[in-house]
Amino acid sequence: MTASSAMASKAHEDDRAPPIFRESLVKLMRAHDSYGVWERMPDEEILKGFVLSREQRRAIPVIGEPDSKVLWRIEIFYTAVSFAITRRTGFDATPIIKISGEGFGRVVVIVGRLVVLSRALRDVHRFGFDTEDALIQAGEAMFDEALAAIERFPAVARDD
Amino acid sequence: MTASSAMASKAHEDDRAPPIFRESLVKLMRAHDSYGVWERMPDEEILKGFVLSREQRRAIPVIGEPDSKVLWRIEIFYTAVSFAITRRTGFDATPIIKISGEGFGRVVVIVGRLVVLSRALRDVHRFGFDTEDALIQAGEAMFDEALAAIERFPAVARDD
Repeated sequence: MTASSAMASKAHEDDRAPPIFRESLVKLMRAHDSYGVWERMPDEEILKGFVLSREQRRAIPVIGEPDSKVLWRIEIFYTAVSFAITRRTGFDATPIIKISGEGFGRVVVIVGRLVVLSRALRDVHRFGFDTEDALIQAGEAMFDEALAAIERFPAVARDD
Repeated sequence: MTASSAMASKAHEDDRAPPIFRESLVKLMRAHDSYGVWERMPDEEILKGFVLSREQRRAIPVIGEPDSKVLWRIEIFYTAVSFAITRRTGFDATPIIKISGEGFGRVVVIVGRLVVLSRALRDVHRFGFDTEDALIQAGEAMFDEALAAIERFPAVARDD
Protein backbone atom coordinates (compact mmCIF):
# COMPACT_ATOMS: atom_id res chain seq x y z
CA MET A 1 0.00 0.00 0.00
CA THR A 2 1.48 3.33 -1.04
CA ALA A 3 1.04 6.54 0.88
CA SER A 4 -1.59 7.72 -1.60
CA SER A 5 -3.56 4.48 -1.47
CA ALA A 6 -3.42 4.64 2.31
CA MET A 7 -5.00 8.08 2.13
CA ALA A 8 -7.58 6.80 -0.31
CA SER A 9 -8.40 3.97 2.05
CA LYS A 10 -9.10 6.43 4.85
CA ALA A 11 -11.49 8.34 2.62
CA HIS A 12 -13.41 5.25 1.49
CA GLU A 13 -12.85 2.81 4.28
CA ASP A 14 -15.95 0.75 3.56
CA ASP A 15 -15.30 0.40 -0.18
CA ARG A 16 -12.11 -1.62 -0.02
CA ALA A 17 -10.78 -4.91 1.30
CA PRO A 18 -8.92 -4.70 4.61
CA PRO A 19 -5.18 -4.14 4.34
CA ILE A 20 -3.40 -7.36 3.44
CA PHE A 21 -1.19 -7.32 6.53
CA ARG A 22 -4.11 -7.05 8.94
CA GLU A 23 -5.95 -9.85 7.16
CA SER A 24 -2.83 -12.05 7.23
CA LEU A 25 -2.28 -11.41 10.92
CA VAL A 26 -5.89 -12.23 11.80
CA LYS A 27 -5.77 -15.40 9.67
CA LEU A 28 -2.62 -16.57 11.45
CA MET A 29 -4.03 -15.80 14.89
CA ARG A 30 -7.25 -17.66 14.11
CA ALA A 31 -5.25 -20.61 12.75
CA HIS A 32 -3.92 -21.10 16.29
CA ASP A 33 -7.40 -21.25 17.72
CA SER A 34 -7.62 -25.07 17.71
CA TYR A 35 -10.62 -25.22 20.04
CA GLY A 36 -12.75 -22.59 18.33
CA VAL A 37 -12.75 -20.35 21.41
CA TRP A 38 -12.28 -17.25 19.27
CA GLU A 39 -14.81 -18.19 16.62
CA ARG A 40 -17.32 -15.49 17.53
CA MET A 41 -14.69 -13.05 18.74
CA PRO A 42 -14.31 -9.97 16.51
CA ASP A 43 -10.91 -9.39 14.86
CA GLU A 44 -10.29 -6.30 17.04
CA GLU A 45 -10.49 -8.47 20.13
CA ILE A 46 -8.02 -11.00 18.71
CA LEU A 47 -5.48 -8.27 17.93
CA LYS A 48 -5.69 -6.75 21.42
CA GLY A 49 -2.64 -8.65 22.66
CA PHE A 50 -0.48 -6.53 20.33
CA VAL A 51 -1.76 -3.26 21.77
CA LEU A 52 -0.06 -1.83 24.84
CA SER A 53 -0.13 1.75 26.03
CA ARG A 54 3.13 3.57 26.61
CA GLU A 55 2.52 3.28 30.36
CA GLN A 56 1.88 -0.46 30.16
CA ARG A 57 5.10 -0.93 28.17
CA ARG A 58 7.13 1.15 30.60
CA ALA A 59 5.86 -0.94 33.50
CA ILE A 60 7.42 -4.11 32.05
CA PRO A 61 10.97 -4.66 33.33
CA VAL A 62 13.53 -5.26 30.59
CA ILE A 63 15.67 -7.62 32.61
CA GLY A 64 15.60 -11.40 32.51
CA GLU A 65 14.13 -13.58 29.80
CA PRO A 66 11.34 -12.03 27.73
CA ASP A 67 7.93 -13.56 28.35
CA SER A 68 7.13 -16.50 26.06
CA LYS A 69 3.87 -14.83 24.99
CA VAL A 70 5.80 -11.77 23.81
CA LEU A 71 8.21 -13.97 21.85
CA TRP A 72 5.25 -15.71 20.28
CA ARG A 73 3.66 -12.38 19.29
CA ILE A 74 6.89 -11.19 17.66
CA GLU A 75 7.03 -14.48 15.76
CA ILE A 76 3.41 -14.12 14.59
CA PHE A 77 3.88 -10.45 13.66
CA TYR A 78 6.82 -11.10 11.31
CA THR A 79 5.26 -14.32 10.05
CA ALA A 80 2.20 -12.24 9.10
CA VAL A 81 4.41 -9.80 7.16
CA SER A 82 5.93 -12.81 5.35
CA PHE A 83 2.55 -14.42 4.78
CA ALA A 84 1.23 -11.18 3.24
CA ILE A 85 4.25 -11.05 0.89
CA THR A 86 3.65 -14.64 -0.21
CA ARG A 87 -0.07 -14.07 -0.75
CA ARG A 88 0.59 -10.97 -2.86
CA THR A 89 3.64 -12.11 -4.87
CA GLY A 90 3.45 -15.91 -4.90
CA PHE A 91 7.07 -16.06 -3.69
CA ASP A 92 7.92 -17.93 -0.50
CA ALA A 93 8.89 -15.45 2.21
CA THR A 94 10.60 -16.76 5.34
CA PRO A 95 11.13 -14.86 8.58
CA ILE A 96 14.25 -15.67 10.59
CA ILE A 97 14.08 -14.25 14.08
CA LYS A 98 16.95 -14.46 16.47
CA ILE A 99 16.45 -13.16 19.98
CA SER A 100 19.21 -13.20 22.54
CA GLY A 101 18.51 -13.80 26.21
CA GLU A 102 18.81 -10.10 27.00
CA GLY A 103 15.87 -9.03 24.84
CA PHE A 104 17.94 -7.91 21.88
CA GLY A 105 17.70 -9.55 18.52
CA ARG A 106 17.44 -9.39 14.82
CA VAL A 107 14.84 -10.34 12.29
CA VAL A 108 15.21 -10.76 8.56
CA VAL A 109 12.62 -11.78 6.03
CA ILE A 110 14.05 -13.63 3.06
CA VAL A 111 12.64 -14.23 -0.42
CA GLY A 112 14.89 -16.44 -2.54
CA ARG A 113 18.35 -14.94 -2.08
CA LEU A 114 17.01 -11.51 -1.23
CA VAL A 115 16.73 -9.93 2.22
CA VAL A 116 13.46 -8.07 1.78
CA LEU A 117 13.30 -6.82 5.37
CA SER A 118 15.84 -6.45 8.15
CA ARG A 119 15.28 -5.06 11.63
CA ALA A 120 17.20 -4.87 14.87
CA LEU A 121 15.03 -5.77 17.86
CA ARG A 122 15.46 -3.94 21.14
CA ASP A 123 13.53 -4.16 24.40
CA VAL A 124 11.78 -7.25 23.13
CA HIS A 125 10.08 -7.55 26.52
CA ARG A 126 8.01 -4.46 25.67
CA PHE A 127 6.93 -5.42 22.15
CA GLY A 128 3.58 -3.81 21.43
CA PHE A 129 1.84 -0.90 19.70
CA ASP A 130 -0.02 2.13 21.05
CA THR A 131 -3.15 1.33 19.07
CA GLU A 132 -4.44 -1.22 16.58
CA ASP A 133 -3.94 1.40 13.87
CA ALA A 134 -0.27 1.74 14.81
CA LEU A 135 0.10 -2.06 14.69
CA ILE A 136 -1.47 -2.30 11.23
CA GLN A 137 0.51 0.67 9.89
CA ALA A 138 3.79 -0.84 11.09
CA GLY A 139 3.02 -4.16 9.40
CA GLU A 140 1.82 -2.56 6.18
CA ALA A 141 4.92 -0.34 6.03
CA MET A 142 7.14 -3.43 6.30
CA PHE A 143 5.07 -5.20 3.65
CA ASP A 144 5.51 -2.16 1.35
CA GLU A 145 9.24 -2.08 1.99
CA ALA A 146 9.54 -5.80 1.18
CA LEU A 147 7.57 -5.44 -2.03
CA ALA A 148 9.74 -2.51 -3.13
CA ALA A 149 12.85 -4.65 -2.56
CA ILE A 150 11.41 -7.46 -4.70
CA GLU A 151 10.56 -4.96 -7.44
CA ARG A 152 14.15 -3.68 -7.37
CA PHE A 153 15.82 -7.09 -7.47
CA PRO A 154 13.32 -9.58 -8.94
CA ALA A 155 16.03 -11.95 -10.24
CA VAL A 156 17.49 -12.30 -6.73
CA ALA A 157 14.08 -12.93 -5.20
CA ARG A 158 13.46 -15.65 -7.79
CA ASP A 159 16.83 -17.32 -7.09
CA ASP A 160 16.97 -20.25 -4.67
CA MET B 1 39.27 -21.96 -2.85
CA THR B 2 38.32 -23.77 -6.06
CA ALA B 3 38.67 -27.53 -6.58
CA SER B 4 41.81 -27.04 -8.63
CA SER B 5 43.46 -24.72 -6.10
CA ALA B 6 42.58 -27.23 -3.37
CA MET B 7 44.44 -29.88 -5.35
CA ALA B 8 47.34 -27.53 -5.88
CA SER B 9 47.44 -26.83 -2.14
CA LYS B 10 47.77 -30.52 -1.40
CA ALA B 11 50.71 -30.77 -3.79
CA HIS B 12 52.56 -27.75 -2.31
CA GLU B 13 51.21 -27.52 1.19
CA ASP B 14 54.20 -25.63 2.55
CA ASP B 15 54.30 -22.99 -0.21
CA ARG B 16 51.01 -21.29 0.46
CA ALA B 17 49.14 -19.47 3.19
CA PRO B 18 46.63 -21.59 5.14
CA PRO B 19 43.11 -21.56 3.75
CA ILE B 20 41.30 -18.39 4.77
CA PHE B 21 38.49 -20.21 6.56
CA ARG B 22 40.86 -22.18 8.78
CA GLU B 23 42.82 -19.05 9.64
CA SER B 24 39.60 -17.17 10.44
CA LEU B 25 38.33 -19.98 12.66
CA VAL B 26 41.61 -20.17 14.58
CA LYS B 27 41.69 -16.38 15.02
CA LEU B 28 38.15 -16.38 16.41
CA MET B 29 38.87 -19.27 18.76
CA ARG B 30 42.03 -17.58 20.04
CA ALA B 31 40.13 -14.32 20.50
CA HIS B 32 38.05 -16.12 23.16
CA ASP B 33 41.14 -17.18 25.05
CA SER B 34 41.08 -14.26 27.51
CA TYR B 35 43.50 -15.87 29.98
CA GLY B 36 46.13 -16.96 27.46
CA VAL B 37 45.66 -20.63 28.32
CA TRP B 38 45.89 -21.60 24.64
CA GLU B 39 48.86 -19.38 23.82
CA ARG B 40 51.32 -22.20 23.31
CA MET B 41 48.71 -24.64 22.10
CA PRO B 42 49.01 -25.54 18.40
CA ASP B 43 46.08 -24.70 16.09
CA GLU B 44 45.25 -28.39 15.61
CA GLU B 45 44.65 -28.72 19.32
CA ILE B 46 42.35 -25.70 19.37
CA LEU B 47 40.24 -27.10 16.52
CA LYS B 48 39.83 -30.50 18.16
CA GLY B 49 36.45 -29.64 19.66
CA PHE B 50 35.01 -29.57 16.13
CA VAL B 51 36.20 -33.10 15.37
CA LEU B 52 34.01 -36.03 16.39
CA SER B 53 34.14 -39.54 15.00
CA ARG B 54 30.97 -41.06 13.58
CA GLU B 55 30.75 -43.29 16.66
CA GLN B 56 31.12 -40.34 19.02
CA ARG B 57 28.37 -38.47 17.19
CA ARG B 58 26.04 -41.47 17.25
CA ALA B 59 26.51 -41.82 20.98
CA ILE B 60 25.04 -38.34 21.58
CA PRO B 61 21.27 -38.46 22.17
CA VAL B 62 19.29 -36.05 19.96
CA ILE B 63 16.59 -35.38 22.54
CA GLY B 64 16.40 -32.44 24.89
CA GLU B 65 18.22 -29.14 24.58
CA PRO B 66 21.50 -29.21 22.64
CA ASP B 67 24.58 -28.69 24.79
CA SER B 68 25.61 -25.04 25.15
CA LYS B 69 29.15 -25.88 23.95
CA VAL B 70 27.74 -27.33 20.73
CA LEU B 71 25.64 -24.21 20.19
CA TRP B 72 28.73 -22.09 20.75
CA ARG B 73 30.73 -24.13 18.21
CA ILE B 74 28.01 -23.76 15.58
CA GLU B 75 28.01 -20.01 16.25
CA ILE B 76 31.82 -19.82 15.91
CA PHE B 77 31.84 -21.99 12.77
CA TYR B 78 29.41 -19.76 10.84
CA THR B 79 30.95 -16.62 12.29
CA ALA B 80 34.29 -17.83 10.89
CA VAL B 81 32.72 -18.29 7.44
CA SER B 82 31.38 -14.72 7.70
CA PHE B 83 34.68 -13.37 9.02
CA ALA B 84 36.54 -14.97 6.08
CA ILE B 85 34.09 -13.35 3.64
CA THR B 86 34.63 -9.94 5.24
CA ARG B 87 38.41 -10.30 5.25
CA ARG B 88 38.46 -11.27 1.57
CA THR B 89 35.82 -8.91 0.17
CA GLY B 90 35.71 -5.99 2.61
CA PHE B 91 31.92 -6.37 2.84
CA ASP B 92 30.30 -6.91 6.23
CA ALA B 93 28.97 -10.45 6.45
CA THR B 94 26.54 -11.34 9.25
CA PRO B 95 25.48 -14.81 10.32
CA ILE B 96 21.96 -15.25 11.66
CA ILE B 97 21.50 -18.58 13.37
CA LYS B 98 18.19 -19.74 14.69
CA ILE B 99 18.05 -23.00 16.56
CA SER B 100 14.84 -24.40 17.91
CA GLY B 101 14.72 -26.35 21.16
CA GLU B 102 14.53 -29.67 19.32
CA GLY B 103 17.93 -29.33 17.64
CA PHE B 104 16.62 -28.13 14.30
CA GLY B 105 17.41 -24.75 12.92
CA ARG B 106 18.46 -22.52 10.11
CA VAL B 107 21.44 -20.38 9.40
CA VAL B 108 21.83 -17.63 6.84
CA VAL B 109 24.80 -15.44 6.16
CA ILE B 110 23.90 -12.01 4.84
CA VAL B 111 25.94 -9.43 2.93
CA GLY B 112 24.02 -6.23 2.29
CA ARG B 113 20.67 -7.40 0.97
CA LEU B 114 22.07 -10.68 -0.32
CA VAL B 115 21.73 -14.10 1.29
CA VAL B 116 25.16 -15.51 0.44
CA LEU B 117 24.67 -18.77 2.34
CA SER B 118 21.64 -20.63 3.64
CA ARG B 119 21.57 -23.96 5.45
CA ALA B 120 19.03 -26.02 7.33
CA LEU B 121 20.45 -27.41 10.56
CA ARG B 122 19.50 -30.89 11.74
CA ASP B 123 20.70 -32.95 14.71
CA VAL B 124 22.42 -29.90 16.09
CA HIS B 125 23.32 -32.00 19.16
CA ARG B 126 25.77 -33.95 16.99
CA PHE B 127 27.48 -31.03 15.23
CA GLY B 128 31.03 -32.07 14.37
CA PHE B 129 33.30 -33.31 11.59
CA ASP B 130 35.08 -36.65 11.04
CA THR B 131 38.50 -35.00 10.72
CA GLU B 132 40.05 -31.56 10.78
CA ASP B 133 40.34 -31.78 7.00
CA ALA B 134 36.60 -32.37 6.72
CA LEU B 135 35.96 -29.36 8.98
CA ILE B 136 38.18 -27.09 6.89
CA GLN B 137 36.78 -28.36 3.60
CA ALA B 138 33.21 -27.73 4.77
CA GLY B 139 34.05 -24.16 5.80
CA GLU B 140 36.01 -23.40 2.64
CA ALA B 141 33.20 -24.78 0.46
CA MET B 142 30.73 -22.42 2.17
CA PHE B 143 33.16 -19.53 1.76
CA ASP B 144 33.47 -20.33 -1.99
CA GLU B 145 29.69 -20.53 -2.32
CA ALA B 146 29.27 -17.15 -0.62
CA LEU B 147 31.90 -15.51 -2.83
CA ALA B 148 30.24 -16.90 -5.96
CA ALA B 149 26.91 -15.39 -4.81
CA ILE B 150 28.55 -11.98 -4.30
CA GLU B 151 30.14 -12.20 -7.77
CA ARG B 152 26.73 -12.95 -9.28
CA PHE B 153 24.87 -10.15 -7.51
CA PRO B 154 27.41 -7.49 -6.49
CA ALA B 155 24.87 -4.65 -6.49
CA VAL B 156 22.67 -6.51 -3.99
CA ALA B 157 25.63 -7.27 -1.73
CA ARG B 158 26.57 -3.59 -1.79
CA ASP B 159 23.02 -2.49 -0.90
CA ASP B 160 22.14 -1.82 2.74
